Formats: sequence, structure tokens, C-alpha cells
Amino acid sequence: MREAYNVELDNLRDQLADMAALVGEAMELATRSLLEKDLKLAEQVISDDVKVDDARAACEEKAYALLALQAPVATDLRIVVAALHAAESIERMGDLALHVAKAARRRHPNAVLPEEVRPAFARMGEVDVRLAHKLEEVVRSRDIEAAKSLEADDDEVDDIHRNLFSVIMSKDWAHGVSAAVDITLLGRFYERYADHAVSVARRVMFVITGRMPNHSSSDI
Amino acid sequence: MREAYNVELDNLRDQLADMAALVGEAMELATRSLLEKDLKLAEQVISDDVKVDDARAACEEKAYALLALQAPVATDLRIVVAALHAAESIERMGDLALHVAKAARRRHPNAVLPEEVRPAFARMGEVDVRLAHKLEEVVRSRDIEAAKSLEADDDEVDDIHRNLFSVIMSKDWAHGVSAAVDITLLGRFYERYADHAVSVARRVMFVITGRMPNHSSSDI
Repeated sequence: MREAYNVELDNLRDQLADMAALVGEAMELATRSLLEKDLKLAEQVISDDVKVDDARAACEEKAYALLALQAPVATDLRIVVAALHAAESIERMGDLALHVAKAARRRHPNAVLPEEVRPAFARMGEVDVRLAHKLEEVVRSRDIEAAKSLEADDDEVDDIHRNLFSVIMSKDWAHGVSAAVDITLLGRFYERYADHAVSVARRVMFVITGRMPNHSSSDI
Repeated sequence: MREAYNVELDNLRDQLADMAALVGEAMELATRSLLEKDLKLAEQVISDDVKVDDARAACEEKAYALLALQAPVATDLRIVVAALHAAESIERMGDLALHVAKAARRRHPNAVLPEEVRPAFARMGEVDVRLAHKLEEVVRSRDIEAAKSLEADDDEVDDIHRNLFSVIMSKDWAHGVSAAVDITLLGRFYERYADHAVSVARRVMFVITGRMPNHSSSDI
């Protein structure tokens, strides 16, 4: 009995880790669709989002079953509750990648991004994808140092995001209001994606240390 | 024993309802601070946000205690898990009100909003506050019709939000990029606030009906 229970807990952990990999891939493709004006990639991200939704539903069902049938306590209970929160946050990361892909599709065949902000988005995309991969590893390994390492990546995304505002609000901005609005929203999607990754990592730290993580909230 | 348990469940419900009232007040004051350039009100919302964070932590602790000590099943289990999700979403509503107040403070003594978008924000604020009040009632009463009624309010916020983009992207827009960026972010805060209220209401419906609610996701 006890053994079957541990297998179930391990399955839940693997499902969550797979989900993190899924939204990492979604953000990677969404960023490429944005930078390369690739409509096919954008469509793929959009149609694949249902897989993330399904994965979340499967995680929730598994967590419910564990709570109802096994009545876990102590660390095991923390793991299951953290998994419920994690499933919600990771699904949200998938939604944010979806929003990026939709922006690329909406403006196709035009580019969403003027040349001078492309490097910022390329970099935010790269760091967001790295965050998702780190998150996958953290969920699998429950390594507290790995979990902490997400914070620096999140700080980098915040810095790029802040800098983006000074670019679009500068006097030299030559691309008008419409591009600025697109960039404002897109910047926010990348920044929130990173926030959610960190928030899940903090939940993992909570599972390990038993201390409630600080609440993650963006500055803006 | 069973009676003490029901009292605990009722307490959890009341804590969540109180939390919804708290973030409703936060959005009401934040909107007034934005429309009336009232720095004091903005400061109050900003300093009061810790109350929302504390309320969320208290809800989570209560939910943990219920799971660990009572091992609820069936509907009771659904109630406790829904409460965990609700606490997270309602805290996020508080964060979004906080972001509105911070925008008002950042631009003070200047107005954030040009005249032509003031009515849109006044209305979104009004509907968001109503959503919070409805949510408070839904959490207390678990009335499924009341829970459904949040959807129409959310649709109204979405419509105003969409219309906002046509205003700031029109050729007549005379307030430049900086104001447009502020308005884009603020519009998103109001829209996400409504989304979270609906998402909690759907969780309440799930508790009542046993059917998983549709996933709430903004269109943009």
C-alpha cells in the first residue's frame, strides 16, 4: 500500500516536470514565431496549448485522488498541495506563451517588433525558456540550490523588461503608439512567465524546508 | 468532533469571503486614487496590501490544518482545495489593485489618464468592485446562479478593455506613447482582476456541481 502511494507521488512529480518541459517548448516556439514572423510555428503553439490544459487537469485529478484516498500528512501533504499550486502556475506559463504566439499571428505577415527591441525579446525568450527547463529539473530533483538559482534569471528578465520601457518611451521612438502597445503587453507576458516559474520554485523550497516562501509579485 | 470540523470549514469560508471584500475595497480606493489623483488613497492601498497577503497565509494555514487533521473527502475535500486556489486568485486581485495604486503614485501630481479614457476606467473600476462584492456573496452563499452572474460582468470589462485599444491606437490619439503604455498596463490590470474573480466563482461552481469549470483565460 505504502509503496503504491509513493509511486503515485512520483507520478505526480513527473507529470508536473513534463508540464514544465511542455511550456518551455511553447515559449521557445512562440518566441521564434515572434522573431521570425513564422505563422506556422505560431499556429502550432496555439493548437498545442490544449495539451498543457489537459496536463493540468490530469495533475489536479491525481492530486485529488491522493488526498482523498491516502490522506497524506506532513511533507507528503505539502508536496500534494504544492503540486496543485504548481499545476496552476505552469498552466498560466503556457497561456502566456500562447499570448505571444497570438500576437505574432495577429500581426502576420508584418513584424510585431521593430529592430531595436528584437534583442531584448530574443534574450527574454531565452531566459524564460531556461527558467522552464530549470523548473523541470527542480521539480524532479527537489534540489534547493537549483530552486534558488531561478531568482537570478528572473531578475535578469525584470531588468530587460524595465529597460524596454525606456526604449519605447524615449524621444527617439519612431514606431508610434500601436507598436508600443504591442511591446508593452508582450514584455509583460515574458515577465509574468518568469514570475510564475519562480513562484513554483519557491513552492518547491517550501516543500523541502517547511518554511512558507515569500510571495512572488512583479514590481509593476 | 464532526461539529468542530464544520465550524472550521465555515471559518475558512468566512475568511475567503472577507478577503474578497478586502480586495474589493482595495480596487475601489485604487480607482479613486487614479481618477482623482489622490496620493493619500494610493498610499493607503499600497500599505494595506499586506493585510491581503496575511489573509491569504491564514487561509492556507487553515486549509492545511483541515487536510492534515480531518482528511476530508468528497465535497468537503473539494471545498478545501477550491479554497486554496481561491486564496491565491484573490490575493492576486489585491496585487492588481496595488499595481493600479502604484501607477497613480508614480505619476502624481500628474494625472495618469487623459480625459477621453477616464470614463472607461471609472466603469471598469465599478464593475471590478462589483465583481469582488459578488464574489464575496458567492463564497458565503455558494449560490450557483450568483456564481454564473459574474460572467456577464467579466464580459463587460473585456469589452471596455478592447475598446480602450481602439482609442489609444486611433489617429486622433494626442497623448503620445508614454500615456498609451500606462493605459495599456492599467487596462490589463482591470481585465485580469475580473478574470480572477470569475475563475474563483467557477471553482465555487465546481464545488457545488462536481464538474470541473472551464479554464479561465483572457483573450489577449
